[in-house]
Amino acid sequence: MGKNLTYKILEKNLLSGNLKTGNEIAVKVNQTLTQDSTGTMVYLQLESMKIKNIKTDLSVAYIDHNTLQTGFENADDHEFIKTAAAKYGIIFSKPGNGICHQLHLERFGKPGSILIGSDSHTPTCGGLGMLSIGCGGLDVAVGIAKGYYYLKVPKVLNIELKGKLNPWVSAKDVILYILKKLTVKGGVGYVIEYSGDGIKELSVTDRATIANMGAELGATTSIFPSDEITKDFLKRQNREKDFVPLYADDDAVYDKKIIINLNDIQPMTAMPHSPDNVIKISDIKDKIKVDQVAIGSCTNSSYTDLMKVAKILKGRKIHKDVSLIISPGSSNILKMMSDNGALGDLIAAGARILEVTCGPCIGMGQAPKTNGISLRTFNRNFKGRCGTKNADVYLVSPETAAVSAITGYLTNPSTFRKAPIVEIPDKFEVYDNYFIYPPKNRNNLEVVMGPNIKPFPINKPLPSKLEGKILLKTSDNITTDDIMPSNAKLLPYRSNIPELSKYCFGTLIDDFYIRAKKNNGGFIIGGENYGQGSSREHAALVPLYLGIKAVIAKSFARIHKSNLINSGILPLIFKNKNDYNLLKEFDEIKINNLIESLDNKSEITLINKTKNVSIQLIFEGSHRDIEILKHGGYLNYANLTNIDI
Amino acid sequence: MGKNLTYKILEKNLLSGNLKTGNEIAVKVNQTLTQDSTGTMVYLQLESMKIKNIKTDLSVAYIDHNTLQTGFENADDHEFIKTAAAKYGIIFSKPGNGICHQLHLERFGKPGSILIGSDSHTPTCGGLGMLSIGCGGLDVAVGIAKGYYYLKVPKVLNIELKGKLNPWVSAKDVILYILKKLTVKGGVGYVIEYSGDGIKELSVTDRATIANMGAELGATTSIFPSDEITKDFLKRQNREKDFVPLYADDDAVYDKKIIINLNDIQPMTAMPHSPDNVIKISDIKDKIKVDQVAIGSCTNSSYTDLMKVAKILKGRKIHKDVSLIISPGSSNILKMMSDNGALGDLIAAGARILEVTCGPCIGMGQAPKTNGISLRTFNRNFKGRCGTKNADVYLVSPETAAVSAITGYLTNPSTFRKAPIVEIPDKFEVYDNYFIYPPKNRNNLEVVMGPNIKPFPINKPLPSKLEGKILLKTSDNITTDDIMPSNAKLLPYRSNIPELSKYCFGTLIDDFYIRAKKNNGGFIIGGENYGQGSSREHAALVPLYLGIKAVIAKSFARIHKSNLINSGILPLIFKNKNDYNLLKEFDEIKINNLIESLDNKSEITLINKTKNVSIQLIFEGSHRDIEILKHGGYLNYANLTNIDI
Repeated sequence: MGKNLTYKILEKNLLSGNLKTGNEIAVKVNQTLTQDSTGTMVYLQLESMKIKNIKTDLSVAYIDHNTLQTGFENADDHEFIKTAAAKYGIIFSKPGNGICHQLHLERFGKPGSILIGSDSHTPTCGGLGMLSIGCGGLDVAVGIAKGYYYLKVPKVLNIELKGKLNPWVSAKDVILYILKKLTVKGGVGYVIEYSGDGIKELSVTDRATIANMGAELGATTSIFPSDEITKDFLKRQNREKDFVPLYADDDAVYDKKIIINLNDIQPMTAMPHSPDNVIKISDIKDKIKVDQVAIGSCTNSSYTDLMKVAKILKGRKIHKDVSLIISPGSSNILKMMSDNGALGDLIAAGARILEVTCGPCIGMGQAPKTNGISLRTFNRNFKGRCGTKNADVYLVSPETAAVSAITGYLTNPSTFRKAPIVEIPDKFEVYDNYFIYPPKNRNNLEVVMGPNIKPFPINKPLPSKLEGKILLKTSDNITTDDIMPSNAKLLPYRSNIPELSKYCFGTLIDDFYIRAKKNNGGFIIGGENYGQGSSREHAALVPLYLGIKAVIAKSFARIHKSNLINSGILPLIFKNKNDYNLLKEFDEIKINNLIESLDNKSEITLINKTKNVSIQLIFEGSHRDIEILKHGGYLNYANLTNIDI
Repeated sequence: MGKNLTYKILEKNLLSGNLKTGNEIAVKVNQTLTQDSTGTMVYLQLESMKIKNIKTDLSVAYIDHNTLQTGFENADDHEFIKTAAAKYGIIFSKPGNGICHQLHLERFGKPGSILIGSDSHTPTCGGLGMLSIGCGGLDVAVGIAKGYYYLKVPKVLNIELKGKLNPWVSAKDVILYILKKLTVKGGVGYVIEYSGDGIKELSVTDRATIANMGAELGATTSIFPSDEITKDFLKRQNREKDFVPLYADDDAVYDKKIIINLNDIQPMTAMPHSPDNVIKISDIKDKIKVDQVAIGSCTNSSYTDLMKVAKILKGRKIHKDVSLIISPGSSNILKMMSDNGALGDLIAAGARILEVTCGPCIGMGQAPKTNGISLRTFNRNFKGRCGTKNADVYLVSPETAAVSAITGYLTNPSTFRKAPIVEIPDKFEVYDNYFIYPPKNRNNLEVVMGPNIKPFPINKPLPSKLEGKILLKTSDNITTDDIMPSNAKLLPYRSNIPELSKYCFGTLIDDFYIRAKKNNGGFIIGGENYGQGSSREHAALVPLYLGIKAVIAKSFARIHKSNLINSGILPLIFKNKNDYNLLKEFDEIKINNLIESLDNKSEITLINKTKNVSIQLIFEGSHRDIEILKHGGYLNYANLTNIDI
C-alpha cells in the first residue's frame, strides 16, 4: 500500500505516537517562523522557558505585520524580537525585508522538512514540498525550545490537477475555483496534497499561492511534490543543494480525492465577504466600479506576479478614480524590478509603491473610503478586515487586478489583448543586508523589553479544589473577538497582556476587568461554540492573567479550547446542557476532587453554593491535555518534559 | 533707491494698500497649494463660499500627509478633495505622487509669482524666485475664491552668501548654521532674501532646502533670485518657458543684512529638541549610537539629495542596529532612481523604501523605539513630534544621514572617504499619471463628503450686546495644542469640527464641551500669550462651533489672534492686567454697545454681573479686522467684498 507525501514526511520526522489518522503524534520540527504580531508572545514564552539554544535546524523571526509604527510600541516590539533572536540563535529579518512567507519560500524552505509558524498562512512553503503548518505561538515557542510539535494525524485529501491553464488564468484563479467547490470548511481536518499532470503547469510561486490559500479552506496545510520545477526554482534562488525529490507513491492511499481540470477554470473573484463566495468574473452582470486595487500579500507578491502586473501596466495609465497600491513580497523582488525597469513602468502608470510588508492585507493601512470597492490579490475579504466596515473587498488574481486598475471597473482580464509572459531570471538576486544572523558568541546578550512589553503570564499547577464567583455568563457563539477584541487601537498591546486585559470581553460588558480584579479571578459560563473565530491565543492568555480558573460551556470551538488548555484554564462542558440555566452571574461555585476526577476520567461535580444545587460536568481531552492542565499550562509542562530528539 | 526682490514681486502684484513696512496690503495670488491635512478645511470653506471657478492662475490640491489610511477617514478626505478640486477647476495630485512642496517646485513654481499654501513649508518654492507664503486655510480659500491675499508688508532681511561650500557640506548645513546664528525667532516679521556669489554654489533644490527651513526661523518666507541656475533647473524640468530672470537691484534697500561665508560651515546637526539647537558635528564628544535614520521630507528629498545617499550607500551595508527609512519627494524621483539603478543600490544596502509622502516627518508612522535616537533630514525635531515622547531626534543633512546609517552612530561625513558627486540629468522625467486635471465641463459635478466630513462652521454677524457665562479661565501660555489637541487619534477628525469639539481644551479639563453645550456658548478668559504654538485654525474653528463669543486675555499670540478674528470670535485684552483677577469661572458677564465701541476705537466695558464690577477691555486691530468681526468672520466678509483683479 503506497504512501502519500504527507505521511512520508511525518514518518521521517516521527518522534512519538502511532502514525494513524486521528492519533496524537509528536514530530521533529526542522524550522520555525514567526512574524511580529504573534512573535512577541512567542519570544516572551521563550524568555520564560529560559532556554539557551534553539532545538530546530533553523528559526527565523520576521518583521512584516506592524511596520507602520504610529507609536513607540511597534519599534519596541521589533527591538525586543531582534534582541531575543540574537540571544537564542534565531535569524532576524528586519522590517523592509519583506513578507515572512515570501521570504521563507525564497531563502529557507526545504522540500521534505517540517516548518511550523505562528501565522495561519505558513502553509505557503507547501509550494516547494515542505510540510508547513500554521499553529499557536506556544506551539512555536515549544518547537523552538524543544524541537518537537504535537499534532493529531490529519486526513489527507488528494487534489489531482489535469489539463492546462487558459490564457489570463493563474494560480489565484485555481485556488478560488477550489474554494468555490469546497467552501471555507472543505479542508478542515485535512492536509491537501496536490498531484497530477496539471502541476507541471505551475511554478513554485504558483503552487505557493495555492498552498497559501489552503488556509482559507480550513486545511491543516497543503503540499505539492518536490519535482524538477522545485529543483529549478531552488537553483535560480542559488540553493540547489536544498533540493530533494519527493513524491507520493503511485499507489498512495488518500482519505479523499478530487480531480480538477485546469481547462475548466476562468478568471474568478471571491465576492464580499468570504473567500469562498466565488464566481466567474464573466458571470457578473453589473459593471462594478472600483475605487482601490491592492496588489501584494503573501498570496500574490512573487516576482512573476508583480512582473505580470508591470507588463500589463507598461505604457498605460491607471484610471483616474482608482488608487492602485503595490506592496512587493520581498526586498529582492523590489530590487530586481527596480533594476529591470518594471518598477519604473509601475510608477509611470501612476501606482502607489508601498513598503514591502503585509500592509493592507492585515488591515495595516490603506483602508478604502466609505462604501468603497477594493479589488485585492490578498487571501481574506472578511467584512471590516480592510479597516472600513462598509467597504466591499473582492479577491482576484494579479492579472485581473492590473487590468481592472486600467479600466476602472472589475474586468475579466481575458477580454484584454494578449496575456503577459514573464521570463524568470536565471539567478534571483540575494541581498542579505536585511537579515541579522545570530552572533557566534551569544553569552551575556541582553533582551531589550520596552515599557509596553510585559512578561508572559504563567499559570500555577491546577489545585484539586476550585472555588469562586461566576464573573460572566454568555450566550451562544461567543467569538475570540468578543473575548479579547483586536483593533487598530489594541493591536499595539499584543505584547502587553496586563493592558489588554482591561478590554477583555469589551464587546459584551464594560467591567469584566473590574469584576475579575475585585473577585481575584473566577469562572466564565458559556453557551454553544464558545470561542469561535480567530485562533488568537490572547483570548486565553488574558483570562489566565485575570485569574480565570475554568470556563464551563455547552460546547467549545476547537482551537480556543486547545488555547485554554495550553494556558492552564480548564474547559468543561455540561453533561446536561439544560444545567446552563442553573448558573447565574455572581453565583458562588466550587469544584472538589478535581485532579482525581480528571485522572479517573470521571464526571466532575460543580456545586452552586448560592443556589445549593450540584451540576455534572465533563472534561473531554487526551491524557496529555490533562497533564498539561495539571502542570498549569503547556509552558510549565514542556519545561518539565523532554522528547529525545 | 534700489528695490529688493520681495518688494518687486509685491509691487507687481499689488491690489490695494501702500507698500510700506507694517502696512496692510492686498496682493494678487497667482497660485495656491493645499495638502490634505489642512486641505479638507480649505475646500469646506470653498464649499460654503459657493464659488464656480478659481480666481488664481493655478491651484493644486496635493495628498501627501495622511496617506497611511488606518481607517476610512483618510480615504474619504482624499475623495472629498478630489471631487471638490474637479468642481472648482483645481489640479488634484493623487496620493503616491509625492510631497506638495517638492512637486510644486518641479512642476508649477514660477519665478516672480506669488504662491500661498496652507502649509508652513510653502516657502520651499522661494528656491526658484517665487514669493511663496504659508498661511491659514481660510486665507488660501479666499485666495482661491477671490484671487487676493492680505498681509502686513514684511521687513526684508538680506543674507549674503560668500565663498564656497566645503566637501561633504550641503544646503542643509547652511540653513542649520543660519538657525544657530539667528534662532527660531530670528526671522519673525521678515522675508529673507538671499544674494551674493555664494548662491552660485547652490542648485535650485539646494536653495529650496534653505528656503524651506526659513519656516523654522519664523520668517514670512525666504527667496532666492531667479538666475541662470533657475533657468537651467526649469529647462531640465521641461518648462524653460516659465523662466523669468529676477534680481534685487544692486543698490536694493534692506531692513537688515547678514553676511555668511560658506567656507566657515562644517557638517552641522540640530540636537533635540529644537531646530536651532545646532552644533558642529565635530564638536560632539560622545559617540551617539543611532537607532533610526530617516531620509526624505519636503526639506531633503530631491533627486540630488537622494542620489547622494545612494552613492554613499552603494556596495555598503546599513549597520545592523539601524533602521534606515527613505521616502523620496516625488514619483518622478522614485522612477528616475529606479531606472538608473540607484534605488537598487539603496535596497541592496538594506534600506526601507516608504511611499513618496511626508510620512514620518509629520509623525505619520516610523515612530522610533522608546528612548530611541533618530537622525532625520527633516525640518523639525520638537519633542514628541516623531510619535515617541522620549525619543531624541537630530536634524542632519542627507550626507550625514547616509554615512551615519553605515557606521551606526552620528558621524561627521567628512571623515568618510570622498564626497559623492551627482550628475543632474539633462531632462527630468515628467510622468503625469498621478495628476488629475479638472474636466473642461464642470457643471453638475458632485462633491463627495463621507460621513466624517462635516460642513465648515459659519459664524453670525457680531451683535452689539454679548452676554453669557465664563466657561473657562486659563493660566498663561496656553497653546493651540491645549485649545484643540492634535494627535494620532484626533488627526482623522480634521474635517469633522463637531467630533473634534468634544476634545476641546482636553489637556486642561474634561468637560469643556459639556460646559459650552449646556450654556449655549460663552466666554474664555486667558492669561499672557494665549494661543501660542502651532498655527492650527481648528483652535479657533472649534470654539466658534461651540459658541464662544469672545476670548478675553492678558495678551494673545499673533497667529491665533488672527484665526480668532477670521472665525468671528472677538479677542479682547485687559486694559489693566490685574482685572484678570476680577473674573472667575461661571461668572455671568456682559458687554453692551460693542459695535459702537469697536467703530469708535474706544474702550469696551465688560460688566461682571455675578460680582457686580465693571472692567475695561481693549480691542487691538485694523479697520479691516473690525469689519471681519462685524460680519461674523472672514468667510462672510470675503463673500461680500471684492477687489477688482
